[in-house]
Amino acid sequence: MNANDKVKMPHALLSQKGSRRDFLRNTAVTALASTALAACSIDESAAQSVAHHEEDHSGGTMAPNPAPISPAAAAEAMDKMHEAGIKAFPAKTAGKGNQLLKPRIVNGVKVYDLTAKKIRWETAPGQTVEAWAYNDQVPGPQIRVREGDRVRLTLKNELTESTAIHFHGLELPNDQDGVPFITQPPIKPGQSYTYEFTVPNAGSHMSHSHHNAATQVGLGLLGAFIVEPKNPLPIEQADVDYVLVLNDGAHGYTFNGKSFPATEPVVAKKGQKLRLRFMNEGMMIHPMHLHGMHMTVIAKDGWDQPAPWKCDTLNIAPGERWDVIVNCNNPGTWAFHCHILPHAESDHGMFGMVTALIVK
Amino acid sequence: MNANDKVKMPHALLSQKGSRRDFLRNTAVTALASTALAACSIDESAAQSVAHHEEDHSGGTMAPNPAPISPAAAAEAMDKMHEAGIKAFPAKTAGKGNQLLKPRIVNGVKVYDLTAKKIRWETAPGQTVEAWAYNDQVPGPQIRVREGDRVRLTLKNELTESTAIHFHGLELPNDQDGVPFITQPPIKPGQSYTYEFTVPNAGSHMSHSHHNAATQVGLGLLGAFIVEPKNPLPIEQADVDYVLVLNDGAHGYTFNGKSFPATEPVVAKKGQKLRLRFMNEGMMIHPMHLHGMHMTVIAKDGWDQPAPWKCDTLNIAPGERWDVIVNCNNPGTWAFHCHILPHAESDHGMFGMVTALIVK
Amino acid sequence: MNANDKVKMPHALLSQKGSRRDFLRNTAVTALASTALAACSIDESAAQSVAHHEEDHSGGTMAPNPAPISPAAAAEAMDKMHEAGIKAFPAKTAGKGNQLLKPRIVNGVKVYDLTAKKIRWETAPGQTVEAWAYNDQVPGPQIRVREGDRVRLTLKNELTESTAIHFHGLELPNDQDGVPFITQPPIKPGQSYTYEFTVPNAGSHMSHSHHNAATQVGLGLLGAFIVEPKNPLPIEQADVDYVLVLNDGAHGYTFNGKSFPATEPVVAKKGQKLRLRFMNEGMMIHPMHLHGMHMTVIAKDGWDQPAPWKCDTLNIAPGERWDVIVNCNNPGTWAFHCHILPHAESDHGMFGMVTALIVK
Repeated sequence: MNANDKVKMPHALLSQKGSRRDFLRNTAVTALASTALAACSIDESAAQSVAHHEEDHSGGTMAPNPAPISPAAAAEAMDKMHEAGIKAFPAKTAGKGNQLLKPRIVNGVKVYDLTAKKIRWETAPGQTVEAWAYNDQVPGPQIRVREGDRVRLTLKNELTESTAIHFHGLELPNDQDGVPFITQPPIKPGQSYTYEFTVPNAGSHMSHSHHNAATQVGLGLLGAFIVEPKNPLPIEQADVDYVLVLNDGAHGYTFNGKSFPATEPVVAKKGQKLRLRFMNEGMMIHPMHLHGMHMTVIAKDGWDQPAPWKCDTLNIAPGERWDVIVNCNNPGTWAFHCHILPHAESDHGMFGMVTALIVK
Repeated sequence: MNANDKVKMPHALLSQKGSRRDFLRNTAVTALASTALAACSIDESAAQSVAHHEEDHSGGTMAPNPAPISPAAAAEAMDKMHEAGIKAFPAKTAGKGNQLLKPRIVNGVKVYDLTAKKIRWETAPGQTVEAWAYNDQVPGPQIRVREGDRVRLTLKNELTESTAIHFHGLELPNDQDGVPFITQPPIKPGQSYTYEFTVPNAGSHMSHSHHNAATQVGLGLLGAFIVEPKNPLPIEQADVDYVLVLNDGAHGYTFNGKSFPATEPVVAKKGQKLRLRFMNEGMMIHPMHLHGMHMTVIAKDGWDQPAPWKCDTLNIAPGERWDVIVNCNNPGTWAFHCHILPHAESDHGMFGMVTALIVK
Repeated sequence: MNANDKVKMPHALLSQKGSRRDFLRNTAVTALASTALAACSIDESAAQSVAHHEEDHSGGTMAPNPAPISPAAAAEAMDKMHEAGIKAFPAKTAGKGNQLLKPRIVNGVKVYDLTAKKIRWETAPGQTVEAWAYNDQVPGPQIRVREGDRVRLTLKNELTESTAIHFHGLELPNDQDGVPFITQPPIKPGQSYTYEFTVPNAGSHMSHSHHNAATQVGLGLLGAFIVEPKNPLPIEQADVDYVLVLNDGAHGYTFNGKSFPATEPVVAKKGQKLRLRFMNEGMMIHPMHLHGMHMTVIAKDGWDQPAPWKCDTLNIAPGERWDVIVNCNNPGTWAFHCHILPHAESDHGMFGMVTALIVK
């Protein structure tokens, strides 16, 4: 099993006492406050939204109306919000990012077509933001090729400003590096531009805009670019291979373009070997913590680690990719989240960078 | 020597020209400004307080009264504040966190009782904050067990909101993982809840709240959970074993719940082998810098590093634990601090994440 | 080739359609907004400036005058600003930091003289800030000695407040450690102070103020202190040896005291082996990303890594030093920048922590 789009949606984690509709009704007022980050228009900075969340750590102010309530009622109301979020997981939203893109094969060349344009993107139920997307997805479509493949990729720019694609991690000839005014002209609105190269070094890489990039990558012009090695090491061969793209820009704290409870669980059977490929496309570190099982770190930026090492919390900085192996030997539903807690939970419950590893 | 509570308080570092009372009198006005972070009520966010500190980097505004003073007098006044802070170290405060908790043994089971409740906590002389604490301590009591031990731990919730304990790093059965609505119901105010398990993987782990955790952990519901291995490696056997919990939430920048000059020095004799166990319970990175001697990194999150490596500055991200060995061969009093300088010093002197390693 | 001051300035990267004068004229108004960080007086905090940049991610507001312009014209104007910045690189500015300081030899002792004083410092064309500098340079002069050398260093303090030098990474006798009130008295305005020691451990180290350090280091009192080993390992012997000091304080986001387009390119010939010595003197992490070639990490804080490992994005925390090797086998001009994108690019083009590796 090789790509994220093959992972099936499991049933909600606990007994279904509340539907998504209930979740929205019960938490409508408070969710608007607590998920302001996700809800914010693109005119608001992440810095402002983070400050908002960090301020909001008083345990006694979650009442949705101004009438005074008892501490016991407040505690009960808080628990109901937390429960509703977890029961809604995995919540349905419109759109799915990081879907495997099959190439057309033309005279032995793998040909990919991407179109960059503005779309509306639902990060969590009812939270819709402006996104700048490749092929209407955030992250953009996942590209998987093999060392030595010949690749031709055409980008059509339907945005209102210029753009370009940098293949982050690939050791390409200079003129395919995707940096406007250094290695190519910018791709102007309405134009198309074609990259073509023989795939060099294997590993977990990325493609993203390298023009006005703080804006363009923050808004969604990014995707996974995976290069499978000709001769994989035994340690990297896995039953389940999952790409997890972290972001923290204008769309809030997201995994593969979605915020909890709309994040996708990672699912494996007991005894399976899971490979996770972390990629940070944001502007903050995210120390990813897995409950219940440890991770063995096997690669950094696509390069094998000479001495794999174990951890349960892996710090992932912007631009980094880390590949880890999890031996899924502990059955259950395990929280899996960024351990900067204001990226993962407010007094209204979990949000943002939270998902679960489900070992069946 | 095995636990932090066995480390004796040394004498003040330099000749005692100023008592703690002098320190407070001399610096009262300015300390209020410079340690606003520590002094802030829990309604203020860490983000705001950090901004406050970072703004405060003009070298010419430390005058405690509005009358103009000469540059020379200003420089002298600054030095006096710096000196007073260092002479006060280690300053006495009420309360000590991270104290070793001895279990009751019941039919071969190690039994621990924790109570979570709100207390007042003195982080530095005269700086008292609201804390949510296990057994009236921040960090909560240190638990030390051995691989294979049977442990029973009961948490009584005397807070006004629900809570739960997650054993961060322990590979427990799913129903002992401590995540409300996923692995257990929340422990409501007034309720008690009992965890019981056989201790799995060795290492430097933590226990902390996993409910409304950005608030609850930030306010103090956390503690070290150390699991000694059945068969320790030679490299990890040390003369002095010291746990250092970092935090940066509502209580300011702290080591084991205290801010400089109330932090505790680490003390070793020349020739001794010191094991430091760093644990980050905050929401920021803290690159810990030791003067005078290097650190050999032997474990990450409780897992042996396959190839131990050396450094003098170790970056510790939220949720991470790092174990290092220091061969204490360089006698003296050595500064030991976070190297994000605004976490350690203002123009009023050192504060926050500063302590010393004293090699006698 | 051993020191940064031997790297020659290459020609501007692309054909010279615009001079630096054109760059300044074309972008004068907008550059004032976009490089507010570099332009800010020292009364403004980095935190504020970062927030300013992060807010500024709307793609449609780069018009230099209030008259409405079409999206196409706006896109064209944005591209012109991006192009102008790159064409100006490497832009001339007054002053060059990190210049190799030759010692006087007195009875076999290497003698260095440093003077700390306030200067004006140009970080980018037209952006001049107050700096506190050693010998009129930011970073201060680079000191290169060998293991076992005897060194005598005198610091004259011409600032208006006290100071002291800490040799960050050197395992010196305690009384040479440079921490006022712990290991020495502060060096008062007008005073001189002499350090003298036999150089201990090899590696990429630093010297910087350890008094009111959040302010003094942020303003420029810092420099590289390189100790060459008596017996270098084969892996660390390189054709080009380049020191890159990162900072993010009152002077904005800088490499060796300059912001793009005034940063210095790293230049090597095809086939050469390049050693980069990263040093973070700031208060934020900076994950440094090199295009086109990977880096092999050989040392941390001056200590050999037991198992060198490869990456293209290396996260560098405050106080850390990392040494890497780049085999310069891919010809071209390669972007080389911090991958926290708001440290490297705004909608007005690249700025701050950007340079290039030019492989000829």
